[in-house]
Amino acid sequence: MDALANRIRESLLALLLEHGDSYVSGEEISQRVNCSRTAIWKHIEELRKEGYQIEARPRSGYRLVYRPDRVAPEEIKPELHTRRFGKEIRYWRQVASTQPLAHEWAREGAAEGSLVITEEQTQGRGRLGRIWHSPPYSGIWMSLVLRPAIPLTQAPQLTLMASVAVTRALRRVTGLDIRIKWPNDLLIDGKKICGILTELRGEQDQVQYVVLGMGINVNVTPDFWPEELKGKGTSLAIAGGRTYRRVELITAILKELEGIYEGFLTHGFEPIRILWEEYAAMLGTTIRAHTPHGEVTGEAIGLDPTGALILRQGDTKIPIFSSDIDV
Amino acid sequence: MDALANRIRESLLALLLEHGDSYVSGEEISQRVNCSRTAIWKHIEELRKEGYQIEARPRSGYRLVYRPDRVAPEEIKPELHTRRFGKEIRYWRQVASTQPLAHEWAREGAAEGSLVITEEQTQGRGRLGRIWHSPPYSGIWMSLVLRPAIPLTQAPQLTLMASVAVTRALRRVTGLDIRIKWPNDLLIDGKKICGILTELRGEQDQVQYVVLGMGINVNVTPDFWPEELKGKGTSLAIAGGRTYRRVELITAILKELEGIYEGFLTHGFEPIRILWEEYAAMLGTTIRAHTPHGEVTGEAIGLDPTGALILRQGDTKIPIFSSDIDV
Repeated sequence: MDALANRIRESLLALLLEHGDSYVSGEEISQRVNCSRTAIWKHIEELRKEGYQIEARPRSGYRLVYRPDRVAPEEIKPELHTRRFGKEIRYWRQVASTQPLAHEWAREGAAEGSLVITEEQTQGRGRLGRIWHSPPYSGIWMSLVLRPAIPLTQAPQLTLMASVAVTRALRRVTGLDIRIKWPNDLLIDGKKICGILTELRGEQDQVQYVVLGMGINVNVTPDFWPEELKGKGTSLAIAGGRTYRRVELITAILKELEGIYEGFLTHGFEPIRILWEEYAAMLGTTIRAHTPHGEVTGEAIGLDPTGALILRQGDTKIPIFSSDIDV
Repeated sequence: MDALANRIRESLLALLLEHGDSYVSGEEISQRVNCSRTAIWKHIEELRKEGYQIEARPRSGYRLVYRPDRVAPEEIKPELHTRRFGKEIRYWRQVASTQPLAHEWAREGAAEGSLVITEEQTQGRGRLGRIWHSPPYSGIWMSLVLRPAIPLTQAPQLTLMASVAVTRALRRVTGLDIRIKWPNDLLIDGKKICGILTELRGEQDQVQYVVLGMGINVNVTPDFWPEELKGKGTSLAIAGGRTYRRVELITAILKELEGIYEGFLTHGFEPIRILWEEYAAMLGTTIRAHTPHGEVTGEAIGLDPTGALILRQGDTKIPIFSSDIDV
């Protein structure tokens, strides 16, 4: 769909929403959206195909009866209160994975905050190439392009930064007790509801761009997961006993991420480190990590100033990097 | 050209070279190369189009009279004595830049040591997106895919590793006094003959793959450079007063790189650091660097254990990262 059609559809939908239960005339739509009544009719037909129920009554006009839970730009943008994050969106009903699409867009010059989002991934991936199950219309499967002017050495802090921001946004909207499991998972009651995957392109010792991938189980139902994953994963809906509108979560996440990210660029990692420890799932517990120098077991006590996890063995403190652990 | 045609051409050329000034019969070629005399004739025609002069005499056979200086796989492979580097080659007469082609190949799964090489780049690039002039048939314009299992923090050491290896190979073949200018240039008499560009893809804190780009002015003539670059760049031919066979340099570089790289993976950065300081152009001189905390001027005294350049200001030693300097 081209940019003009997108804008018309966004305005049309906004106008229908604004009128709530009352009808809005074809005449008024035509004037406000600034296109012909025939064109309006075509866009209404397109929206119906996407699952919107729009009632048409002679001499009264149109009325929105049912709005499907979609994560299309025309749903996200009216509720988005960010400066840059999510201002440019590429949306698909189904893709293999949003990560390579975001990489491609970044190589083409995508602005910071550009977002790739889809209703369904057929080959979603987690850390170390593991499969991430991403069923249709029931989760948030998205990738955000960032262009931080930071050295490569600081890049792993972005995963921790994103964990904090997503945790805060999901807590605010759902009220659920969401916790961070180092390095890149969010949990409820010890079960996974979100994975964050940070990939990047670098030149010499600088970051060129980052693709921040997020997979969030929103309204995924228990019967969805294959047998071997049952008991390991959960969703906001399972934990909260209700479904959630994904667009509300997405706009909350983008808003929170933008603020936390800008704070990170200005004030560095220290404020993130403090927030991270507040939400951490694993502090005080015993962790086993596979390091290049052998297996290390110790009590997780916090993050060091660079973002490494500190394991305590008696009086010794050992920093662990995410590549070292095999969860 | 497909893989079979490549192999035939490689065998054919090897056979002609083996016979030196004497003729080799079509019959013998056909048997040794294992294809029909008609096919042989077609391959001879193709080679002639590439600039090879091959004399054909009735009842005597074929004889190689002139061999153009090309960097095609059939020229490189017979002289290559590596285990993995350069075993897979993608070759073009002209490309915009070898770097994006190597990235694409790496994303498709290119093995470690896969090489993209070309006779001419129309949009060659250096550090920070600067133009790198890459005229036809007169330089080495190539990109090597590496897959080191190292954390992102160590990635900048690969540029220093490559500088050392290329310096050693070029010194051995040419006998010229080649020096390293931190972070990524090689010089003769203070003028640039080679630039090295390390780009990478990372996931969380690990390197997924590296593309090591090298641009080397071999037989480039002084009139080639635009006016503003005259006096800044030079070539091996200008410095040595003779031309060099590029294939000899390429195979020497790949061999040296493979050895130094494997040493780096096994023994770490320390041996590289020592060699680097031996070849450094700038130690003992005053350097000005632009850091995030302001401009720093000091005497370059060496590399720290991570590969940062150490500037001395009185009793203070300040580590400088390549992103900090604006040469």
